[in-house]
Amino acid sequence: MYKQVIVVRKDLGMDKGKIAAQVAHASLEAYKETDLETRERWEEGGSKKVVLKVENLKKLMELKERVKSERIPYAVIRDAGKTQIEPGTVTSLGIGPVEEDRIDRLTKELKLL
Amino acid sequence: MYKQVIVVRKDLGMDKGKIAAQVAHASLEAYKETDLETRERWEEGGSKKVVLKVENLKKLMELKERVKSERIPYAVIRDAGKTQIEPGTVTSLGIGPVEEDRIDRLTKELKLL
Repeated sequence: MYKQVIVVRKDLGMDKGKIAAQVAHASLEAYKETDLETRERWEEGGSKKVVLKVENLKKLMELKERVKSERIPYAVIRDAGKTQIEPGTVTSLGIGPVEEDRIDRLTKELKLL
Repeated sequence: MYKQVIVVRKDLGMDKGKIAAQVAHASLEAYKETDLETRERWEEGGSKKVVLKVENLKKLMELKERVKSERIPYAVIRDAGKTQIEPGTVTSLGIGPVEEDRIDRLTKELKLL
């Protein structure tokens, strides 16, 4: 099974609409980084998505480094900052789609948003 | 300017993680329905996304019909229903990306999520 994981910072105080927009952004950008065959397998399985939370920027970037070193496609999302938060703030990380066991190993300690 | 609008039902009692996953799903599926030239113009402008709310299924489907009759790309999202809500429940509607003035006419009465 394949899934996509989106990780959101919980220390920014974003409201649910802001969070949803950032997650959508991360989902789409990580999707664009993913090869066609993986995309298709993920879609055949129902395009599973899981949204998790991290404490802060440091934790998000540490996870990004592990994802990168595993050669899993990802996208770091920075907000345009027109509302709620400063321009350029990293808000979220989109990962995959990728095989579930490859991503679960990296994110097993994170909780659902 | 181009933007994508995602409309979420507020009567389902979904939590913020669930909402974010549904919005991401709607965003990606509507994106796939959109022609390449429109996608590129939207991306050049920063991939603007706005998340709005509707009262209930009836309002969501009425909006979908108006979007469809304007030949704007869209995607109706039904949840797999493994958590929180019944399988097949319509949760959200992804619209566009599309020129802002074309979509604003149809959604001007809706509030931000």
